[in-house]
Amino acid sequence: MTYGIIGTGAIGGYYGAKLAHAGKDVHFLLHRDYDFVMNNGLQVNSCDGDFILEKVNAYNSTANMPKCDVVMVSLKSVNNHLLPTLLPPLLKTGTLVLLIQNGIGVEQDVEKMLPGIQLAAGLAFICSAKTDPGVVNHQCYGSINIGNYSCTDKELLATLLSDLAEAGVTAAEVEYYEARWRKAVWNMPFNGMTVALNTRTDLLLQNPSTRQLIYDQMHEVITAAHACGAPNLDYSFADKMIQMTDEMTPYSPSMKLDYDFHRPMEIHYLYTRPLEIARENGARMHKLEMLEAELRFLEASIF
Amino acid sequence: MTYGIIGTGAIGGYYGAKLAHAGKDVHFLLHRDYDFVMNNGLQVNSCDGDFILEKVNAYNSTANMPKCDVVMVSLKSVNNHLLPTLLPPLLKTGTLVLLIQNGIGVEQDVEKMLPGIQLAAGLAFICSAKTDPGVVNHQCYGSINIGNYSCTDKELLATLLSDLAEAGVTAAEVEYYEARWRKAVWNMPFNGMTVALNTRTDLLLQNPSTRQLIYDQMHEVITAAHACGAPNLDYSFADKMIQMTDEMTPYSPSMKLDYDFHRPMEIHYLYTRPLEIARENGARMHKLEMLEAELRFLEASIF
Repeated sequence: MTYGIIGTGAIGGYYGAKLAHAGKDVHFLLHRDYDFVMNNGLQVNSCDGDFILEKVNAYNSTANMPKCDVVMVSLKSVNNHLLPTLLPPLLKTGTLVLLIQNGIGVEQDVEKMLPGIQLAAGLAFICSAKTDPGVVNHQCYGSINIGNYSCTDKELLATLLSDLAEAGVTAAEVEYYEARWRKAVWNMPFNGMTVALNTRTDLLLQNPSTRQLIYDQMHEVITAAHACGAPNLDYSFADKMIQMTDEMTPYSPSMKLDYDFHRPMEIHYLYTRPLEIARENGARMHKLEMLEAELRFLEASIF
Repeated sequence: MTYGIIGTGAIGGYYGAKLAHAGKDVHFLLHRDYDFVMNNGLQVNSCDGDFILEKVNAYNSTANMPKCDVVMVSLKSVNNHLLPTLLPPLLKTGTLVLLIQNGIGVEQDVEKMLPGIQLAAGLAFICSAKTDPGVVNHQCYGSINIGNYSCTDKELLATLLSDLAEAGVTAAEVEYYEARWRKAVWNMPFNGMTVALNTRTDLLLQNPSTRQLIYDQMHEVITAAHACGAPNLDYSFADKMIQMTDEMTPYSPSMKLDYDFHRPMEIHYLYTRPLEIARENGARMHKLEMLEAELRFLEASIF
């Protein structure tokens, strides 16, 4: 099995390095840290034990990369317009492209860009950051759920899961629609609200008004999920997510970090597309529509 | 006719001074500027011509004020809990209390505090400010609409209207529910959104996302109005309000000024009560519910 990693950051860097460290054939696309990694390798500081990949198959262009059996895409979704250029050199008949990205609608849109491609969603449950060049800091968790979107090669999927397991990564196959929408139940309220009110997850839950708002927004997502292919997502999942967040250390979601560091925010796949898809299926998420509008306003003010 | 003014600020000070200047018997409750006005009178700098009331019937407690035929209440609604203490000394059988205040639900709540009281809503269309002690700066407009809530004395109402006309104030009687809800169509979106996004009316309308949001929020108010006693308020009124705001000079609504100067915001009567009243009548204003929650969060952060 040959693996390609498009976007060697906190997420792709971690899973790619774990696979390579377990002896798998992994090829990494690098951008800013290409020279550094060529000279120094890729270092993973992990709660499960640190390691260094001394010899890395590093590339600064996908044009030079080999065809792969599995390509993991862990670019920020704001760069997905690059995929029709980046991906084709790595694709052969039957390549599985795993989109380890936030939001709803990424598989649908990549399928339109590259018709016939085999796609799956990768839902990473991980706290990880790339702070310095060539260094991935893996703080905790690390499992990945895989939701099959259009892959007909069950054997390839099974091999991917067993390779991940061999690499020490907890991986499981899950139902695609339910998995994407389950993640949206937490992501849609907290990513945007921490930006809109310039705050933290814990403070949003301490204030009774915003606690209720987060709860209402989660219910909007669950109602939309029911209309969009995930009929079994129970409303009690909102209570579970709020309880989990109550117990978490105060946390800045990825969109809040992007906003604070003046990086593009993933509004399109975290809000615009799920709102569109829900609307097409007859479900309105009124409060999350408002949140999208506020984020668009704030985005226009900072850039 | 004897008039009492509870809250001699930019609004009450203006209408009271106009009536007194026309020779009516007006009694003013003053707080911080009591001494100043006793010594220097009340000055009105007005686009319609400046004047000074040299001798003012000024009081620093309602306990010393005479019974009145009409009491104009132009306190900020955040102080309405004081009314059961402030009002009774001025009330006799048949006194009309005119609530010149923002929002929805003020008459209903004052009626509960002081059962049997005769109430009307005063809807002021005026740009006016009290900048220095004893000085009202009246920049433009100045008309007042009066919506009768529970006044059975039609003659008293007619006298009030003719006294205002004599004093040079354009005044008209309007349908109570429609008048309150019409004003909410502009007030609910713009007051809160300028605070939530720390911005101005013109910038909210320049951004296509927030322009649509303001429009959606106005439609929520109109739908609620239909359920709450104002069935004839047309949706096209939203277009008119947006067009009017497009043509206005950039403007900070009263709640934005309150927020900027760290004064209490009128969240209760601009959001909480109208949302409750709408809900009781089977109408949800989802986006304005979210706005209320954001304002509650921001309020808790600044005090």
